[in-house]
Amino acid sequence: MIARFFRPLSRDGTGVRIGIGDDGAVLNGIRDRELVVTTDTIVSGIHFPADCPAGAVGHRALAVNLSDLAAMGADPAWYTLSLALPKVQTHWLRAFTRGLDRLAQRASIHLVGGDTVRSPVLSVTVTAFGLVPRGQVFLRSTARPGDRIFVSGPLGLAAQGLARWQGGQRRSRRLRPFLYPEPKLDWIRVLRRDVRCAIDISDGFAQDLGHLLEASRVGAVVDLDRIPRDRRDPIALDRALFGGDDYELCFTIPDTRLATLRARTRRAGLEGFEVGRVVPGRGIRWQRADGSSASRIKGRGFDHFAKPTTRR
Amino acid sequence: MIARFFRPLSRDGTGVRIGIGDDGAVLNGIRDRELVVTTDTIVSGIHFPADCPAGAVGHRALAVNLSDLAAMGADPAWYTLSLALPKVQTHWLRAFTRGLDRLAQRASIHLVGGDTVRSPVLSVTVTAFGLVPRGQVFLRSTARPGDRIFVSGPLGLAAQGLARWQGGQRRSRRLRPFLYPEPKLDWIRVLRRDVRCAIDISDGFAQDLGHLLEASRVGAVVDLDRIPRDRRDPIALDRALFGGDDYELCFTIPDTRLATLRARTRRAGLEGFEVGRVVPGRGIRWQRADGSSASRIKGRGFDHFAKPTTRR
Repeated sequence: MIARFFRPLSRDGTGVRIGIGDDGAVLNGIRDRELVVTTDTIVSGIHFPADCPAGAVGHRALAVNLSDLAAMGADPAWYTLSLALPKVQTHWLRAFTRGLDRLAQRASIHLVGGDTVRSPVLSVTVTAFGLVPRGQVFLRSTARPGDRIFVSGPLGLAAQGLARWQGGQRRSRRLRPFLYPEPKLDWIRVLRRDVRCAIDISDGFAQDLGHLLEASRVGAVVDLDRIPRDRRDPIALDRALFGGDDYELCFTIPDTRLATLRARTRRAGLEGFEVGRVVPGRGIRWQRADGSSASRIKGRGFDHFAKPTTRR
Repeated sequence: MIARFFRPLSRDGTGVRIGIGDDGAVLNGIRDRELVVTTDTIVSGIHFPADCPAGAVGHRALAVNLSDLAAMGADPAWYTLSLALPKVQTHWLRAFTRGLDRLAQRASIHLVGGDTVRSPVLSVTVTAFGLVPRGQVFLRSTARPGDRIFVSGPLGLAAQGLARWQGGQRRSRRLRPFLYPEPKLDWIRVLRRDVRCAIDISDGFAQDLGHLLEASRVGAVVDLDRIPRDRRDPIALDRALFGGDDYELCFTIPDTRLATLRARTRRAGLEGFEVGRVVPGRGIRWQRADGSSASRIKGRGFDHFAKPTTRR
């Protein structure tokens, strides 16, 4: 199984002295860069529907980790895969590895090891490695009052896709943000010179912005009308704030860096959305474009921020 | 949960700039060493009994990975933990993390990240990172005809312990090799100067020696009477050859290095057991001390080596 399905994914990557086939991988060429490591497990029926296409499962397992690397400002380098499977089905494995490898190739990340085990429940753990020039990592803890808050794209589309999937749709292209979330790798080098604070939006914007603010010991004012979302969707704002699995980036940037960032973003063909500002204090004040307070915004995410949270 | 159970395991390790709490860990200080990465998943009811003590589960999840690092000659540095749990039980988590951390402290390995998810079945994935001076890694592929074959300790004791556990024993100290397998970290620095070829014995000596020989494209003659085992156990040889989970090391060494290795081993208070010799060709010839061929040795492991295997 390893020879057939996984070894082909283990192409010669930069710095891979030994890939699959020994007791461990041997990696070098890190030199003076910093190594970023992230790991995520996805479980059938919990993190994706049990009837999710195999290719989408492979894609997702890697995408969630690539999104973390992007949020750290790290260029993807290597990954390991641990696959726990109820049974070995050739067609399933073929589709799974194809979904995984398609994204891996686009991201220039190389499989260097793994483990395949039997389990009553399908689950996939990917550990991904990225490299960053020393001192250029993006952290959650470096937002400062006065910084602008940006998101890298529309929010809530994955939650909308999930609702469509649960409603029985199988062919709409609006399922795509849910089935094949796109990690924001294009942003890494655009942000590297100007940004030091970022997080990826995996658990809903309200919650993840909250994590960033807590780590930085600051608060924020967010303009609800500027949050990019599907305006045709009557519950788009709810999905944007509290829906998960968007994998957009949220980052903060001082005013002084704004002009160069805008130029770089435009040159890269990307568009960022400014949604608010970092302020002293704690918590998030949600407001409308006219400055009125949106006190009716309560819910899963909002309560969550009333008290410090320890969740990663 | 992370704050309570896992953050305490994340002590300041060498080279850990950012540990738990951001989108990923940031590691440095690798300099000109090579990075070794290994990952293993253990699943309840498959790799350990469902009624296995929580502390033994935590120990095992790390031990199997430390054993791979030892087999690569890598000093333990960091690890990530992905824990899939049916439910959060405080007493279980406390015992699990205690078993895990006790071994981690002895091994000087530091938790740098992880993921905790809900799953119908308990499973644990550890990805471990080790460091090796450039060019000093142990591989499976570097055995040469004439090399002596050693094992680091008695084989088959874990299989014996498992049989006792399955037979209902819960208090015998002979359960220990099965419940708390000891990765052979003491051997890493003893072997580093003289040895370039090693594997850890996780799937039974016959199978794992077979992997080493295949990777090196050589054969072996093994003296069955010299395989260290529990001589009181009537099926000790079968357990030594085909039982799993021993986590002893098997390594090969040229004659010219033998004297210095013996001196180093003795100084470290360790004892290696010479069990055979690498020969040209393929496959393993099992023989008795008097040189007679042990043709009756057939079984899981032996047949397995009649044809090349692709299993990692």
